[in-house]
Amino acid sequence: MPIPRDATLADVGEFGLISELVSHFPQGEHVLVGPGDDAAVLRIKQGHVVVSTDLLVEGRHFRRDWCDAADVGHRAAAQNLADINAMGGTGHSLTLGLAAPADLPARWAVEMAEGFAAECGLVDASVVGGDLTRADQIVVAVSVLGAVRKAPILRSGARPGDVLALCGRQGWAAGGLAILKRGFRSPRALVEAYRRPEPPYAAGPAAAEAGATSLIDISDGLLAEAGHLAADSGVAIDVRTDSLVVPEPLHAVASATGADPLTFVLGGGDDHALLGTFPADAALPEGWTVIGAVGERTDGPLVTVDGEEYDGPTGWTHF
Amino acid sequence: MPIPRDATLADVGEFGLISELVSHFPQGEHVLVGPGDDAAVLRIKQGHVVVSTDLLVEGRHFRRDWCDAADVGHRAAAQNLADINAMGGTGHSLTLGLAAPADLPARWAVEMAEGFAAECGLVDASVVGGDLTRADQIVVAVSVLGAVRKAPILRSGARPGDVLALCGRQGWAAGGLAILKRGFRSPRALVEAYRRPEPPYAAGPAAAEAGATSLIDISDGLLAEAGHLAADSGVAIDVRTDSLVVPEPLHAVASATGADPLTFVLGGGDDHALLGTFPADAALPEGWTVIGAVGERTDGPLVTVDGEEYDGPTGWTHF
Repeated sequence: MPIPRDATLADVGEFGLISELVSHFPQGEHVLVGPGDDAAVLRIKQGHVVVSTDLLVEGRHFRRDWCDAADVGHRAAAQNLADINAMGGTGHSLTLGLAAPADLPARWAVEMAEGFAAECGLVDASVVGGDLTRADQIVVAVSVLGAVRKAPILRSGARPGDVLALCGRQGWAAGGLAILKRGFRSPRALVEAYRRPEPPYAAGPAAAEAGATSLIDISDGLLAEAGHLAADSGVAIDVRTDSLVVPEPLHAVASATGADPLTFVLGGGDDHALLGTFPADAALPEGWTVIGAVGERTDGPLVTVDGEEYDGPTGWTHF
Repeated sequence: MPIPRDATLADVGEFGLISELVSHFPQGEHVLVGPGDDAAVLRIKQGHVVVSTDLLVEGRHFRRDWCDAADVGHRAAAQNLADINAMGGTGHSLTLGLAAPADLPARWAVEMAEGFAAECGLVDASVVGGDLTRADQIVVAVSVLGAVRKAPILRSGARPGDVLALCGRQGWAAGGLAILKRGFRSPRALVEAYRRPEPPYAAGPAAAEAGATSLIDISDGLLAEAGHLAADSGVAIDVRTDSLVVPEPLHAVASATGADPLTFVLGGGDDHALLGTFPADAALPEGWTVIGAVGERTDGPLVTVDGEEYDGPTGWTHF
């Protein structure tokens, strides 16, 4: 049943909207019971499940004037799938919860769900369940289940002597956000990168295969995530800026705002690039670049930039 | 590190609070990687996972002046675990997302998490991950993973000739809610039932073992859920009121409010009792009572009460 163009969630009702949303969720062969019962049932071949969860709050993680509904859906799926990628695995099943005001256009929810399902489709993951309820503010609550081929790659396995490496766009989304915050819409490539991150979904499993010793996805900021690796592994990490690629359009943004373009690369999150460490003699998979080195833990800072303490912004804090 | 009594989420910060919360989450043996990495990793022995998700929104699903933080945690876990129960299974792993205002007392979050973990402990389930972020309104987002012993019991398996049966307290929570809405706090047993539902966690697996043909948990209302069973199974269901137990304290509430106490039992949700159907010759497990019958689908209503169409409230709608 098509939803009238101007209908709100209240007009369509919970069950009407759920039935419309579910029609956008194709189910993989591993889904024994999909949406519509008290719970979904998934066939699991691997003997394990990798699971993560993330919330996106309107005004905090997205703004409806900056991102359309499909963008929000793509981002919500991407940031969750990226967490499985960061274990060296791939997501196969997601749940999608939506809390929203009764006067939200039903089309917004439908387009968000379409974007969400489209992003999941990139890794052949299924949207197997969800929840829909009323709230003052839009909150998108996602959980993701996935699998790794062999062992999961943790944050805690980096060892002195390892190299630090990066895969995926980094600094693009932060540049896009800076542009939107100033009320502009271009360079468009950066704005689009903020709206729809492109996590390197193949990079996690490839890194695991290549012997990565630790992995994390960059959601809050490159240096902040390097700090997590260093802290959890009991090591120190040095990032070398001469090996970091500053995306061409960032130079324009930086010169317009008077900022050093490297601050977007070092402190920016939201691209969901992968950061990892590998033994120095490992052959890095395609797309990975060495951007630093792992050393012994000292009394100094956990993370240095070109051997020095860094005093710029390192990432995002939630409170 | 103990959290100061008056500290807010903003005072404690995201990472400080997460580390405090996680200390309240004991991990079962099936948890290979618990909270603290990009994702958790669970050992799955059964070859399948049963998964469900639910959101609780302040002002919609709970009020802080009606329920303390631990109550909210218990309820959030209970309603999710009940969804696995309603598949004939048991939850083993949950994720807990919390979106909340920065000025929320950190103690509220800690006590909520303690209540959540305590409820999970009733079925030996572990809290394996979560997310914490800022929002204008408190939203608790839960996902639950579980397993069934043999096949899951769906909503769609009821057959004409089956009996309809109920296990668990029903109508208690609705009575408690009616009391709180009028500004009272007693009868206390009903108010407590609303604050901390007691889903019959053993009843789902026992029903599956006994050959239940369909199962659903009563979160929105007995007749509403009976309607889901009838619709999904392509049958008609008749509920017989002479077999329903009206809890003693409900009589007092009903006489004070002029309501028929049966309306609480027929239309009330939130107790997370289990409703199911069994072949007429099945031996019902302990705690289950026959409360009706399954018949052929007709042009009449999906659900009747004592053979007649029911015109009272049948349950809760979300928009």
